[in-house]
Amino acid sequence: MARQIHREIQREVEELVTGGNMRPHLGVVLVGDDPASRTYVRNKTRAASILGISSDTVVKPTSVSQDELLELIDKMNRDWKVSGLLVQLPLPGHIQERAVCNAIAPEKDVDGFHIVNIGKLCLGQTSMVPATPAAVWEIIRRAGIETVGKNVLVAGRSKNVGLPIAMLLHTDRNHQRPGGDATVTIAHRCTPREQLKELTRLADIVIAAAGVPGLITVDMVKEGAAVIDVGINRVPDRTTGKLRLVGDVDFEGVKEKAGFITPVPGGVGPMTVAMLMKNTVAAARYALTH
Amino acid sequence: MARQIHREIQREVEELVTGGNMRPHLGVVLVGDDPASRTYVRNKTRAASILGISSDTVVKPTSVSQDELLELIDKMNRDWKVSGLLVQLPLPGHIQERAVCNAIAPEKDVDGFHIVNIGKLCLGQTSMVPATPAAVWEIIRRAGIETVGKNVLVAGRSKNVGLPIAMLLHTDRNHQRPGGDATVTIAHRCTPREQLKELTRLADIVIAAAGVPGLITVDMVKEGAAVIDVGINRVPDRTTGKLRLVGDVDFEGVKEKAGFITPVPGGVGPMTVAMLMKNTVAAARYALTH
Repeated sequence: MARQIHREIQREVEELVTGGNMRPHLGVVLVGDDPASRTYVRNKTRAASILGISSDTVVKPTSVSQDELLELIDKMNRDWKVSGLLVQLPLPGHIQERAVCNAIAPEKDVDGFHIVNIGKLCLGQTSMVPATPAAVWEIIRRAGIETVGKNVLVAGRSKNVGLPIAMLLHTDRNHQRPGGDATVTIAHRCTPREQLKELTRLADIVIAAAGVPGLITVDMVKEGAAVIDVGINRVPDRTTGKLRLVGDVDFEGVKEKAGFITPVPGGVGPMTVAMLMKNTVAAARYALTH
Repeated sequence: MARQIHREIQREVEELVTGGNMRPHLGVVLVGDDPASRTYVRNKTRAASILGISSDTVVKPTSVSQDELLELIDKMNRDWKVSGLLVQLPLPGHIQERAVCNAIAPEKDVDGFHIVNIGKLCLGQTSMVPATPAAVWEIIRRAGIETVGKNVLVAGRSKNVGLPIAMLLHTDRNHQRPGGDATVTIAHRCTPREQLKELTRLADIVIAAAGVPGLITVDMVKEGAAVIDVGINRVPDRTTGKLRLVGDVDFEGVKEKAGFITPVPGGVGPMTVAMLMKNTVAAARYALTH
């Protein structure tokens, strides 16, 4: 599915460029030397390059001041060569992430974290949708999973994953940015285990985005349900002792009962990068007409 | 409960005024001559006056242009004598309500409909919370109804009532604007009746905000559950034929099983007006320090 979206993006980029327009460009800001952040940024810029999207990464030291960062963002906001702009999170403790997210021009905000993009998402207005929720949406759509009037459980309420997924799925299919028209339950760390089980067993779609390995087990899932695993957890492998990537779902157990299931790794992850690229192309298109 | 809040507001207003500060002032804009809108505005300005909050209502004809309305709002935004500002909805069809809501200065937006206030509500940041959701929150708090880890069902997903209620109740109690830490299900017109019943029967708190008379019946409610009725429906009385105000809950039936229940009229309604006044005083306080 991610490959299919890649082909669509490549085609769209080439159409733009052969039409005499600027090649879509992703501007990335990376602060400090967190190895995970570096890997994420590298994956994004590599994906961009493969799809014909140009990019550049501005690296700032951990000691960068908030003002300096905001000035850099302001400069990139006004730079017409930058179609989409993202600041890799997390940021060092002395910088307010919220101030940084709100400083990015909403129409270039390919991560969709600007307060106005969050508000629009809730109101069912067209906006930049954060890449992970967009990936979950796209998986559901392309797999032909029905959502209207279905019962969805989202485990996890993070502001950039669980909450926007709940927003996309419960809202009206006839709004400017169509929603899923599903009944949606938001569960989280305060949800007692027994209550969670009671609710997941009623769910036609379970979306696990809690960051808890093994949270969703086979006894919690309804026969034939769709199970989408958004969790990314690094746990030591029992035999090798090395860190291994797992989701929130006990894949081996649940796959016997689920009608549809996504693995980790190789499920939502690759789709997320694809959706970020889709946002970048959308930002480039927006700039053409505004 | 509403009376208790009235006393608190009166005390707060008098403290402000005796402290040498300006009396909090509510500016209201009313467009056209819809009788229901006129009644709502009258109720609000009357409540303000009783609580020591001054107010004025600018009435514009239905033919007013959007630009003229936006100019008026801009003027009131910049008028330091106006602490809080609300435009009574609905507006005539030729005016975009969203543009009007977003034109009000967020810090004066006592209805809490500005896109930034909606975004902040979702992020758990301090913001103007729309009066009806704030009323539901306050009822739950003051009645001592536990929410942490409880199962809440909200029937109705409107952007100014159902959705913000779901936001308040599912979010983290340790955020800047504390949330209820409850598991929350959002149901709506696409939720099949049987599914709704299945879910309400599991709910510790049922909040009915769908605008459907008789939606919640006794067979749908768990023994001892708290039932909060936000519905306001006008239905013809079977005996007199006159229009009568009813909620979404079959009060007579459900009250036998519920542990807590609010009536319509006389439940959430009076609390809503009180919360609007609280927002106005909060806006006045904000202006003092900014």
